[in-house]
Amino acid sequence: MDAVNLPAPGSKTRIVVVGGGFAGLNFVSKLDTRAYQVVLLDRHNYHTFAPLLYQVATAGIEAPDVCGPLRKSFRGKQDFHFRMLEARGIDPDRRVIRTGAGTIRYDHLVLATGTRANFFGNANVAAHALPLKTVPDARRLRNHIFQTLEQVDMTDDPRERERLMTFVIVGGGPSGVELAGALSELRRHVLDRDYPDTPMGGLRFVLVEGSDQLLGGFSEKSSADARRNLEEMGVELRFGTLLSDYDGRTATLKDGSTIETATVIWGAGVTGEIIRGLGEGSVTKARYVIDDRLRVRAYDNVYALGDIAFLTNDSWPKGHPGVAQVAIQMGQRLARNFNALAKGEPTRPFVYFDKGNLAIIGRNRAVADLPKNVHLNGFPAWFIWAFVHIFYLIGWRNRLFTFLTWASNYVTYNRAVRLVLEPSLENQFDPERVGEIEE
Amino acid sequence: MDAVNLPAPGSKTRIVVVGGGFAGLNFVSKLDTRAYQVVLLDRHNYHTFAPLLYQVATAGIEAPDVCGPLRKSFRGKQDFHFRMLEARGIDPDRRVIRTGAGTIRYDHLVLATGTRANFFGNANVAAHALPLKTVPDARRLRNHIFQTLEQVDMTDDPRERERLMTFVIVGGGPSGVELAGALSELRRHVLDRDYPDTPMGGLRFVLVEGSDQLLGGFSEKSSADARRNLEEMGVELRFGTLLSDYDGRTATLKDGSTIETATVIWGAGVTGEIIRGLGEGSVTKARYVIDDRLRVRAYDNVYALGDIAFLTNDSWPKGHPGVAQVAIQMGQRLARNFNALAKGEPTRPFVYFDKGNLAIIGRNRAVADLPKNVHLNGFPAWFIWAFVHIFYLIGWRNRLFTFLTWASNYVTYNRAVRLVLEPSLENQFDPERVGEIEE
Repeated sequence: MDAVNLPAPGSKTRIVVVGGGFAGLNFVSKLDTRAYQVVLLDRHNYHTFAPLLYQVATAGIEAPDVCGPLRKSFRGKQDFHFRMLEARGIDPDRRVIRTGAGTIRYDHLVLATGTRANFFGNANVAAHALPLKTVPDARRLRNHIFQTLEQVDMTDDPRERERLMTFVIVGGGPSGVELAGALSELRRHVLDRDYPDTPMGGLRFVLVEGSDQLLGGFSEKSSADARRNLEEMGVELRFGTLLSDYDGRTATLKDGSTIETATVIWGAGVTGEIIRGLGEGSVTKARYVIDDRLRVRAYDNVYALGDIAFLTNDSWPKGHPGVAQVAIQMGQRLARNFNALAKGEPTRPFVYFDKGNLAIIGRNRAVADLPKNVHLNGFPAWFIWAFVHIFYLIGWRNRLFTFLTWASNYVTYNRAVRLVLEPSLENQFDPERVGEIEE
Repeated sequence: MDAVNLPAPGSKTRIVVVGGGFAGLNFVSKLDTRAYQVVLLDRHNYHTFAPLLYQVATAGIEAPDVCGPLRKSFRGKQDFHFRMLEARGIDPDRRVIRTGAGTIRYDHLVLATGTRANFFGNANVAAHALPLKTVPDARRLRNHIFQTLEQVDMTDDPRERERLMTFVIVGGGPSGVELAGALSELRRHVLDRDYPDTPMGGLRFVLVEGSDQLLGGFSEKSSADARRNLEEMGVELRFGTLLSDYDGRTATLKDGSTIETATVIWGAGVTGEIIRGLGEGSVTKARYVIDDRLRVRAYDNVYALGDIAFLTNDSWPKGHPGVAQVAIQMGQRLARNFNALAKGEPTRPFVYFDKGNLAIIGRNRAVADLPKNVHLNGFPAWFIWAFVHIFYLIGWRNRLFTFLTWASNYVTYNRAVRLVLEPSLENQFDPERVGEIEE
């Protein structure tokens, strides 16, 4: 008996999916639930369209625009059951997973838990730097950015003003590059008009990258284009060094240099969200080792998909990249294999079709690596980027609202919303004030 | 010297406005800043369109739709200065107000701080009941509602399920009535399809009102119409009793009866946000006593507007109602009087023009008290309500997006967004996990 109010699967096979990201969402979407009962667990009740979180953080679009409510997405789906729960452990012998609300039995288990920020054991950085992996992260970062700008207007101390106006971004991957670009655009088109009492030319954006290039995994041309664009937009680039410490006031780099800053944004490292319980040989470097049928090593009814899976083959000897397309295609392949099994048809191995890479840097500035070695930049890449991202958003509402917001921002050079919805200044409303008895 | 980076007013007179609600916003908007320097303080960087907070709480529209960023609203305004600060005290002799970032000198001071929830000294209720006065309140309430519904699906204990499915709303004013109606609509049109494993007919909404009627201040006809509508929609009404205690599990009413519930929404009492420092005779029942030029008693350069002001005259011997129209008209009148003084023209007394009252209860269900004793209900009242509320929203983006969302909800019987963006379950992400060092 499951403790979470689930109907028994009856004669059907129950598949439990952990995680409603790109992999889990596409798996459930393609699975034939006339043949299977499917239970989806996620700690949030929505899918996060992670590629646009940086736009939420920089007030380009709103948080709900990147969220797809999971129950709504699968309303029409028969024998689909969502539970807002975090998986806490797996018992592969009893075929159950443990959650905060009790255990859930599975016939097949699909792990699609993705990654979380990894601060490499540095508790100081973990306490003070701001990650950008979840919707709450993005909203916290936005609150922090706009609140910091408000604080600039409240002090006449030039050193403190300089510190408040310096933003450090750690990591030169797509999210670091896109965030740095978006902040620079914000400075250029929005902030000067919003803050007449503070010259916004004083804003500094520093991007720190451990290697010697941006956008590792992209083509050399795109990497160089991204670098040139960010330099033109006034972003300071520091290559070949890492953040070694940050105490909330001073960021220290590995080369010994320091930067006084109120904001360090962490886009450098991630680690897999491993659920304990599988045998040790199943996991390497915080990824589940899977075969070409996406089965976790040593198990015939446990699968792993997307960022949390480690799959090597001749084309990808070091494993597949941690991008949305891999997750989407793995989810679809596994669902199609289950559907084939139900019809007595053979399953097929997973083969990744690389559609290329896209990154946006600013207005009319983007890079695109497309199949057949086509590399675009400037407006064409920017246009493709916008088209693809609207297309992949969940639901017509999100597509329409994001399109309208972007179109408006493009025409007016403005941002729709720059609200500090949850201020954390010391001058905040005092929850202790219970209210007095009136006469 | 002001400590908050403000330019000196020079030969101009400086007016400091505390609060960017309906009164403060309309005052600044109408003030001629060629003649005056204006400094606006608010603890948030946005104006809140409070009449629609209940829709944010029930997933009808999104939080940004009811927010007007204050800096953006007054971008074109010369010599306008916003600071995100809470006023902590007034020193009328030195003509300064104290804030968390230092003091600010004023020539004229306009107090428009509005009200906050008042729990009448009951710390238990203050700790467990959910108010609905601010945007953070509305988002917390929405998170709570949808998270509570998720929890229903995680237990098989019938008593616990009943408790989770019972919602108590305290206060039968417009916000209590509108909230009860919106929850009932949610049950009817959305939840059954979203939660197939839980029969949503078990949801109970109990509205507790101390008097013997709903919508005090509205006409008797509208009050009776609202009652009939809510009863038809299955809301339980308890008149003539108050909430005397709530410990997070059991709500106790003054008549001794108890209700097991996980949710008590507080729409019952408010109290003025008084800033300390003015003489005692200036304040009565947490309101500033003002004259017909909106001056606080005993001061010739301190004014109070809106909910925080207490103004009696022959038409309103018990004071003016705490509604948006009073605040808007007071803000406009005071600005016009300042503008008149600058031109050497005479000032005019404040005269409230009562445009009537509107409350929405559900789809095609609303009540409207219009001038000349016209009372509408049903679709006409509902249509006027929607038109007026879209008209008064701040900015074309909010008007367009709210209109599109409402139009879509109306046609599809759906709600756009029902996200638990900040879950507070025990199965939440653990911020302690700093990440391990990988090989």
